[in-house]
Amino acid sequence: MLYEISEKTMKLESEGNKITKLNIGDPDQPTPNEIIKAAYEAMKQGKTKYSSSAGEKKLREALANLHKVSADNVIITTGSKWAIFSLMYLLLKKGENIAIPTPHWTAYELTAKSLGTETKFLRTEIESEWKINVDKLEDLVDRKTRLIILNNPHNPTSKVIDEKTLDEIVQIADDKRITILSDEVYSDISFIETKSVLDYGNDHILVKSFSKTYAMTGWRIGYAVVKKGLAEKMVKLNQITLTNVPVFVQEAALKALELREEVANKMREEYRRRADLASSILSETKVKSSKPDAPFYLFPKYEGLDSERFALDLLNEGVAITPGTAFGDYLEHFRIALTAPEEEIKLGLRKICEALK
Amino acid sequence: MLYEISEKTMKLESEGNKITKLNIGDPDQPTPNEIIKAAYEAMKQGKTKYSSSAGEKKLREALANLHKVSADNVIITTGSKWAIFSLMYLLLKKGENIAIPTPHWTAYELTAKSLGTETKFLRTEIESEWKINVDKLEDLVDRKTRLIILNNPHNPTSKVIDEKTLDEIVQIADDKRITILSDEVYSDISFIETKSVLDYGNDHILVKSFSKTYAMTGWRIGYAVVKKGLAEKMVKLNQITLTNVPVFVQEAALKALELREEVANKMREEYRRRADLASSILSETKVKSSKPDAPFYLFPKYEGLDSERFALDLLNEGVAITPGTAFGDYLEHFRIALTAPEEEIKLGLRKICEALK
Repeated sequence: MLYEISEKTMKLESEGNKITKLNIGDPDQPTPNEIIKAAYEAMKQGKTKYSSSAGEKKLREALANLHKVSADNVIITTGSKWAIFSLMYLLLKKGENIAIPTPHWTAYELTAKSLGTETKFLRTEIESEWKINVDKLEDLVDRKTRLIILNNPHNPTSKVIDEKTLDEIVQIADDKRITILSDEVYSDISFIETKSVLDYGNDHILVKSFSKTYAMTGWRIGYAVVKKGLAEKMVKLNQITLTNVPVFVQEAALKALELREEVANKMREEYRRRADLASSILSETKVKSSKPDAPFYLFPKYEGLDSERFALDLLNEGVAITPGTAFGDYLEHFRIALTAPEEEIKLGLRKICEALK
Repeated sequence: MLYEISEKTMKLESEGNKITKLNIGDPDQPTPNEIIKAAYEAMKQGKTKYSSSAGEKKLREALANLHKVSADNVIITTGSKWAIFSLMYLLLKKGENIAIPTPHWTAYELTAKSLGTETKFLRTEIESEWKINVDKLEDLVDRKTRLIILNNPHNPTSKVIDEKTLDEIVQIADDKRITILSDEVYSDISFIETKSVLDYGNDHILVKSFSKTYAMTGWRIGYAVVKKGLAEKMVKLNQITLTNVPVFVQEAALKALELREEVANKMREEYRRRADLASSILSETKVKSSKPDAPFYLFPKYEGLDSERFALDLLNEGVAITPGTAFGDYLEHFRIALTAPEEEIKLGLRKICEALK
């Protein structure tokens, strides 16, 4: 339903309808002008040719510095999504499975399905503040479990995994020789401190993106930090699929890294304000909500709600949200992305509150 | 060896060595300035967001007009390579096979291998002007053959499939219900008329790219023309892999289409001149060469040559070419890409002639 709502929204817009889009994690802010200029300068300098399938050395080195790894461990990808798909493509065999906490970003499950591998879901609940039950995770995984995918901070709940829980998850993975693929695309703009899987050495995999922090969603650039052998396999897969991320896009990303603190601080504060505003409006209704630790989402619960019908009805009212079923078996939940200017968030939330009365 | 030589060349260059690069099909010309400007304008207008996984409607419509199909049949892809990979990923099951004339672009075979499917090779020879023997093709395919991949005009031989041969290949494919995937990325700048697989109705698949005609290799944009059902599957795969080609890159492609005739004519004439020059220099040696019908390559044969050793030796002399083995069982052949300014082509070819003495 995530992509259906989003394609339907684009269709309605192309037909001239004004939609308040609270459905996708695409910041309303423009990409910072300096980043755009860096891309343009690179284009003018002729950085429009085929290049290395591993990514530009300069960018890999900058990211290696940031994460205290070697540039050999860093592979530039066409968005974090491609990092995830290609890693799952390379690591999973038919008959194997992955374990993910649910609710979950739909692409993990769809990718596993597309690759003919099973997804095992570890249910979390708003009533226990979306905490991962580590004992249940231990029971869930089996000999065929190849990957545990974590999304930290989490989409759609905006929760950060606390340090103790993460310690225990890593311990289970290490004991059972399961690789953790940690998708940390929201970590730079998290409201609270977020531990990275790289803090536990480099047996596991980090996936990140420039999309969220720098409002660069449509540029399609992310990266993976992996062991050298796996990095080489990713390069070979890139060679037969994408060749390389455009060099001018990589130059833009390099400029983004220079601006990292300044941009991240600004984004973080803006989204903290929006989260407070939205939580306060929602508190007027009977929805159950949890306090977000990070951008961009709220994932409230309304008892008895059919969120699919609710989302379609709201779309007809000009507000796009995503039903909870797009993230697993969460029909009573819906996701609000706070990726719109304050006035639109207010307008959208008022309509949501009205509809929930 | 294709990617090995290319990564090694980049490494040597990054260490400050000057290499005459006749190894990859990456035009030395810059992307036309108007195209770069169109991308920049689009970026400044905020076209830096997530967008449709099918591609921008305007661009799909422009391409549909060009190919006399519906926009529903056109899917924008991250280079033609992604179109090919994703189509093979969607269409091929383990145990099935593809048939391709060889010599062949290495990505077809590597992709099939990566997907666990077999590649059946139909050998062609310089002695018979690289003509496809249709009877042999008919013998080669079997019940498990799902795709025949044609590359027309052809890399590395630069030959165009004559109309009668193409008629017969399509007939075989239709009789045996095999889909033809026709990679026509060089057709706009072919020296002679080139029939498209779309001239035979839309049972088959066309794959094209902006890379070669417009010197946009590093922009990573191509497209596929497919039946509607398959188009929908490609969209779903794009949703879990790449999301979309950057909209500003699609705007650049739209501008490229506006300039199509002018740019293609210029490129075609330039490469015709280069091909004549190179053929004339090579005629001083004992290599066997065939007349190119299209850019960018020459694929001569030198009896007794070990082209892998030859390519590595030449690279040490500062000239990058690709050994014939990168395109199949063609150890006595090597590929020269004429994607360098005339002076460099002369210099490179002189060194090649010298080395062949």
